[in-house]
Amino acid sequence: MAPRRAIAVIGGNVADDAVARLAFATGQAIAQRGAALVCGGMGGVMEAAARGARAAGGVTIGILPGYDRTAANPHIEIAVATGMGHARNMIVVASADAVIALPGETGTLSEIALALTIRRPVVALGGWRDMAGVKIAESPIDAVAIALDAAAAAGR
Amino acid sequence: MAPRRAIAVIGGNVADDAVARLAFATGQAIAQRGAALVCGGMGGVMEAAARGARAAGGVTIGILPGYDRTAANPHIEIAVATGMGHARNMIVVASADAVIALPGETGTLSEIALALTIRRPVVALGGWRDMAGVKIAESPIDAVAIALDAAAAAGR
Amino acid sequence: MAPRRAIAVIGGNVADDAVARLAFATGQAIAQRGAALVCGGMGGVMEAAARGARAAGGVTIGILPGYDRTAANPHIEIAVATGMGHARNMIVVASADAVIALPGETGTLSEIALALTIRRPVVALGGWRDMAGVKIAESPIDAVAIALDAAAAAGR
Amino acid sequence: MAPRRAIAVIGGNVADDAVARLAFATGQAIAQRGAALVCGGMGGVMEAAARGARAAGGVTIGILPGYDRTAANPHIEIAVATGMGHARNMIVVASADAVIALPGETGTLSEIALALTIRRPVVALGGWRDMAGVKIAESPIDAVAIALDAAAAAGR
Repeated sequence: MAPRRAIAVIGGNVADDAVARLAFATGQAIAQRGAALVCGGMGGVMEAAARGARAAGGVTIGILPGYDRTAANPHIEIAVATGMGHARNMIVVASADAVIALPGETGTLSEIALALTIRRPVVALGGWRDMAGVKIAESPIDAVAIALDAAAAAGR
Repeated sequence: MAPRRAIAVIGGNVADDAVARLAFATGQAIAQRGAALVCGGMGGVMEAAARGARAAGGVTIGILPGYDRTAANPHIEIAVATGMGHARNMIVVASADAVIALPGETGTLSEIALALTIRRPVVALGGWRDMAGVKIAESPIDAVAIALDAAAAAGR
Repeated sequence: MAPRRAIAVIGGNVADDAVARLAFATGQAIAQRGAALVCGGMGGVMEAAARGARAAGGVTIGILPGYDRTAANPHIEIAVATGMGHARNMIVVASADAVIALPGETGTLSEIALALTIRRPVVALGGWRDMAGVKIAESPIDAVAIALDAAAAAGR
Repeated sequence: MAPRRAIAVIGGNVADDAVARLAFATGQAIAQRGAALVCGGMGGVMEAAARGARAAGGVTIGILPGYDRTAANPHIEIAVATGMGHARNMIVVASADAVIALPGETGTLSEIALALTIRRPVVALGGWRDMAGVKIAESPIDAVAIALDAAAAAGR
């Protein structure tokens, strides 16, 4: 049996209301499609996406920067404690079949770049429209559909 | 909500029948106690433990050395692709509340040592009886009980 | 005594003649200013910069993706073998007091983003002019001067 | 040109006088043989070995757990900042052609086990005599000679 399909949601560790709503709806859509949500396990976009996925009965995976599993946001079911700081960004994207990028700062940009480097499909939602190599989505449901299609096309 | 309780099972990537049976029963007992199984995601002890956990309806997490999620053994539900080679040993033990060590080689020894370094309780089963700092179990059910008690005592 | 001042040069693992010349001159200027050159240790910009630094009598440090120290390009004196694949990008920029970015692909972009995330000054040379947060240099000597000034201003 | 020959010295981050003297003499002997010293860059055995190597005019490389290069002990010339916590233990041993193990705790044990896992020769000095797979040295000069011979025999 193959591992459960997984989609990463990346974005800032602080999120305004509009972005948090986008993230919540994206997490929800991922769960509704039967995939696991992967994220960095902390606040902002990560927390809102995990909350959405849990609200829809989904599995949530947080790839944490430190060794303390309890530092995960309260919507993380599977807490992976890396102790690797920002190098855990690589693990977040590698542990997903495709990546959905919401607005964020340089940490998010590093995750987009690392994902493209190992050929994980990247879908931009609410930002990052000028990045070469990303696919543009117009809504959370659209983003998840594009991500799952791209993962399938890549044989994942 | 706190993340799901997780117990790591570590041991050789090749296992004889007796050790594989121990690993299977340990994975089974972990699932029966409601905890997630964490392992390195590959063969031998890791595969047998994951098979046991899945047979009992549990959640299995594989912390893989490479970027290829499909390299996980077929009993892994959550495939975390680190791309970090042997440095992923640190993540295996850090992502668990306690660690159960079955027979293995130097890779397993490194995991025991790393677990003790970050104060994760380590339970020895079927070997490693002479290691300072580990707790000795006489059966898989005993090992899981000791692991969960030690995790609770450590506030995990 | 503080560690030796170090400047990272990042860029593509393939480089055309013009970019290779820029990289060589940048490595040379780093050595002439008495700093160590840090790079990813492989080909393209990394090799040309290391060649330039060695030609000027400098120290060269290669942060390699694998465990094989002999995989370093022939101009690396200090070969650090991480075995961490692309996650070593984080170590390349963290091990420098400032970073000079030459043309490259998504791997280089991830290094710029990671450097900015941990507040290492980034100087763009021959590309990356539109990146928020980077300083623009017009020549290798200019780039090294800006990098050393920025490092000093940051207390490094 | 191949990278400079490098020998790691590992051991506790606290060292009593006798162990610190052993570490100092080992660092000194490494430098006198023309090899670079690799260590974890912090206190105890790491600091004493680096002090010995610098006293003999050698090159010292510190593979640090955090992102702060200035956290290195004052005898480190090349400060590699990993930000990877204990996972940097893997990089310490992988970045050397052979490893000399002085007395230490579980962190040192993890380094011995990781070194053996990737087939770096390990020489025990002042302890670790019962570890399978290590070579026993009776003095610092003896340890360095055994380490360099083992590295050469392994083609490093």
